[in-house]
Amino acid sequence: MRIARFTTGGDPRYALIDGDPGSEELVVITGDPLYTPVQPTGEQIRLDDDSVRLLAPVIPRSKIIGVGRNYAAHAAEMGNELPPAPLLFLKPNTSVIGPDDPIVLPDWTEHVEHEAELAIVIGKVTKDVTPDRALEHVFGYTVANDVTARDVQKADLQWTRAKGFDGSCPIGPWIVPGLDVDDLFVRARVNGVTKQDGRTSQMIFDAAYLVSYVSEVFTLLPGDLILTGTPAGVSPIVDRDIVEVEVEEIGVLRNPVLRRH
Amino acid sequence: MRIARFTTGGDPRYALIDGDPGSEELVVITGDPLYTPVQPTGEQIRLDDDSVRLLAPVIPRSKIIGVGRNYAAHAAEMGNELPPAPLLFLKPNTSVIGPDDPIVLPDWTEHVEHEAELAIVIGKVTKDVTPDRALEHVFGYTVANDVTARDVQKADLQWTRAKGFDGSCPIGPWIVPGLDVDDLFVRARVNGVTKQDGRTSQMIFDAAYLVSYVSEVFTLLPGDLILTGTPAGVSPIVDRDIVEVEVEEIGVLRNPVLRRH
Repeated sequence: MRIARFTTGGDPRYALIDGDPGSEELVVITGDPLYTPVQPTGEQIRLDDDSVRLLAPVIPRSKIIGVGRNYAAHAAEMGNELPPAPLLFLKPNTSVIGPDDPIVLPDWTEHVEHEAELAIVIGKVTKDVTPDRALEHVFGYTVANDVTARDVQKADLQWTRAKGFDGSCPIGPWIVPGLDVDDLFVRARVNGVTKQDGRTSQMIFDAAYLVSYVSEVFTLLPGDLILTGTPAGVSPIVDRDIVEVEVEEIGVLRNPVLRRH
Repeated sequence: MRIARFTTGGDPRYALIDGDPGSEELVVITGDPLYTPVQPTGEQIRLDDDSVRLLAPVIPRSKIIGVGRNYAAHAAEMGNELPPAPLLFLKPNTSVIGPDDPIVLPDWTEHVEHEAELAIVIGKVTKDVTPDRALEHVFGYTVANDVTARDVQKADLQWTRAKGFDGSCPIGPWIVPGLDVDDLFVRARVNGVTKQDGRTSQMIFDAAYLVSYVSEVFTLLPGDLILTGTPAGVSPIVDRDIVEVEVEEIGVLRNPVLRRH
């Protein structure tokens, strides 16, 4: 099952995605599946209909938690030691954009990079959950690009500016519930050229452990996101690039890059 | 004017605080003053009525931005250099508690400290505002305690756990609009003993500059908070302490400290 948030010009609505690649249909549903029971409305729209624009599948009401250095090869390429515990940071909900939305490069950075990631979407109020029960609190999974201003990340003591600016958290194209995320490929392409090609099996701390660890710090709310870290191969993105992030069995998140002149 | 959020057992409501210290009345208003025009309902309740419980005056829908090392004497007492620009970090909205709510010490820290701060409450959608127009985007000011797990702050590369855990952001007791915040005392007392006693005039980056700087990174939304940094004198808080933070012309924010056994 795939759950999308979309608009045809009015308020955001939700739909299940049905059908094969190239002929997918949006099966429109009532309500917000994160918070309310849903029913098909009876309306179906072709995904490739000109009126359809997919939106970020969720706008968190509370928080987005990032995990730094969760793939050994990426930590090594940045010249960093492996962390003894998950290295947490926050991105605000104002950083979220959806499929095909432009990543606008801020004028205070000269060096922005993509980071392809599997994102966990929390489904229940969660505090102090053990790893063996953690995945029961997950609503589903989506694809994220943890866009990072690398020069500012190195200059600032905290990563807040570097990873929190408007547009630094593209997510989508939809949410897939009930997925086994133990061994999925995680890839990034820039202008069609593969830059990152890792597997979730390379994560130092796996999804269940991350949900548990994070829940010992914060109360997690429905719609909160955990970005699970990025594999090796991060690279710069510049004006007019097209960056695509893909996670196996979820889909491709595509965003153009824009620098305002 | 002082704007409080309170409950008498049901849903949160808002009120203006009227009257002199010791005989204040809650003048109940309709709606949420951050988002809607308000009207007195005609109901008045004594602030010291047993049924009244003041709540955190706002729960941000987006973000709480902290500013590190914004008072030279505090940076010095921590052994830190002064930052060349505001040192930003984020606290999630799940860290917010209100007046008299307990600060529950997490079991993964042995050393938690109070940090008395003036907090700015944003009133409008704000992006790239200049310092000279910045205060037009402020709804008002309140008092905050930027509770910090000092041992974990030093051990973790990022301050996310140390400053983001549930209950690490007491705010209140109410919001004061239209205040001149250039030179107000900012104090903390633990069990009645004064620990911090600074003035906002000692801030390295003032309120207008902070709003402007932060708005170049993030879109600020109504209800977002900026915590403006803490003066010298931070000290540990332990089980059964009473910590009070006071900002001149706003009021006293009082919280008990609790360690679960």
